[in-house]
Amino acid sequence: MTKPKYLTGNNAAINEFIDQFDVFLLDCDGVIWSGDHVFEGVPETLEFLRSKGKKIVFVTNNSTKSREEYLKKFTGLGIPSNVEEIFGSAYSSAIYISRILKLSPPKNKVFVIGEAGIEHELRSENIPFIGGTDPSFRRDFGPEDWRGIADGSHLDPEVGCVLAGLDFHINYLKLSHALQYLRRGAVFLATNVDSTFPMNHNFFPGAGSMSAPLTYMTGGQTPLALGKPSQAMMDAIEGKFQLDRARTCMVGDRLNTDIKFGIEGRLGGTLAVLTGVNKQADWEAEDAVAVPAFYVDKLSDLGAVA
Amino acid sequence: MTKPKYLTGNNAAINEFIDQFDVFLLDCDGVIWSGDHVFEGVPETLEFLRSKGKKIVFVTNNSTKSREEYLKKFTGLGIPSNVEEIFGSAYSSAIYISRILKLSPPKNKVFVIGEAGIEHELRSENIPFIGGTDPSFRRDFGPEDWRGIADGSHLDPEVGCVLAGLDFHINYLKLSHALQYLRRGAVFLATNVDSTFPMNHNFFPGAGSMSAPLTYMTGGQTPLALGKPSQAMMDAIEGKFQLDRARTCMVGDRLNTDIKFGIEGRLGGTLAVLTGVNKQADWEAEDAVAVPAFYVDKLSDLGAVA
Repeated sequence: MTKPKYLTGNNAAINEFIDQFDVFLLDCDGVIWSGDHVFEGVPETLEFLRSKGKKIVFVTNNSTKSREEYLKKFTGLGIPSNVEEIFGSAYSSAIYISRILKLSPPKNKVFVIGEAGIEHELRSENIPFIGGTDPSFRRDFGPEDWRGIADGSHLDPEVGCVLAGLDFHINYLKLSHALQYLRRGAVFLATNVDSTFPMNHNFFPGAGSMSAPLTYMTGGQTPLALGKPSQAMMDAIEGKFQLDRARTCMVGDRLNTDIKFGIEGRLGGTLAVLTGVNKQADWEAEDAVAVPAFYVDKLSDLGAVA
Repeated sequence: MTKPKYLTGNNAAINEFIDQFDVFLLDCDGVIWSGDHVFEGVPETLEFLRSKGKKIVFVTNNSTKSREEYLKKFTGLGIPSNVEEIFGSAYSSAIYISRILKLSPPKNKVFVIGEAGIEHELRSENIPFIGGTDPSFRRDFGPEDWRGIADGSHLDPEVGCVLAGLDFHINYLKLSHALQYLRRGAVFLATNVDSTFPMNHNFFPGAGSMSAPLTYMTGGQTPLALGKPSQAMMDAIEGKFQLDRARTCMVGDRLNTDIKFGIEGRLGGTLAVLTGVNKQADWEAEDAVAVPAFYVDKLSDLGAVA
């Protein structure tokens, strides 16, 4: 392992670093913001990179928001952006289903465990789906469900895929339906398999906690994940933006998702920032999951040379 | 591995088998009944064993019913029994918490994921608990929950244990609370970790599907299970009934729970019945999880000698 290069305060090194890349893939939480707090100098740094002709893509595992909803968040936080710059795991999943999985009738419906963000992106790719935020799945399990699910009369014979993302309304009914579809051969996808979801400086159940019980129930079926660090997401990003991997840099705060994602994707570079989950000691540990090529204290250190 | 002895139709062998034991531990589903259908001849066979002075104990992993509720089911199905003959995983959990874990104030409350059966058994052992069927935990996750759970103001500082059982009302709120208690050092228990729950000749999410996401979220914390095949349950049964393991036989339909439970508990014998999940081919397989000492086509074959 080579030692990561520390860029903060070294203008020559920062300029050399920026010149190496045409595209910056940026994680959001822990890089751009923490919750609803934008880190100081970040909007200016993004403008600086754009002014140098760099392409910016925000790459996030959060599937509860669609790209449009993300754009609203960016705008509300004073960060100029546009939908084309945003690439979330819900969109990544929709792209994978429509362009790679290419489900065909009569088995082309998706059973969704997740929130509206997934539904918006499936609609944007004209993928039929059931479940999700439908109120008929947001209810208590009833006595008639045992029979209807067991004999299949409550199931939709057109479902050919189960897509599991973060669902704040997860329940026994949705898990029971998903189990049956998987037992009947549905393709098992997950927007991402993050174990936890960071909010209010603490941890809540993540999207992977929605697919974990399904993996357990089915005796070990694991989903194909469409979020970082899965290379299925990198392939989708490359397909959409036609980027040159050698001239692309992944920027993030987490070694096990962001930095691993960039390294396994054979990008030209990876940049760690110290404003999120992982610190220098994490990649210096003997069992470090991934080691970045570069690091800065904070993203705005890149703009300090402007 | 020795070949299991087949008893059906062999009166001499059946008599010899019965004479070896004083206590029969009987699984219910797949042995006594399937759902609400009692297998023919079973009530008579149980009476026959009792008439020969044998102690009968029904050992079940289903935690959704208390012993009293189980007794109602037995009575309703025409099977004479009494509460003292019934040993479920909810009761096993309560016994473990009160007599082995012995939580002391100010950390002696249990956070329950599960149904009324667990609550009844905790009450029977005077164990304080929260969660479970409390309507305030059977609701959608609200915006104020992020803050209250993250800063601990919604949490009960007296919780020292998380007990996860089958919960038909599992939701994001309960999972979020449980995660926080585990992160704060609560002991992690499960009534049982069955991956599925058999109903209407099909499979639904089992109790282990409630603890599986917690294991995933916590980065690998696994619960101590108090149901079959965990020997914590065998210890609890032995403690209660003061049985002689050498003179005790476990009877069941599942190799990975019932038969494994008896073998690892070093009981004098194990008897498989073919009225449930596993068949002869399963223990004859090279990677068989457990091989019974005896087997019969159905439990009532034991009574055929009467």
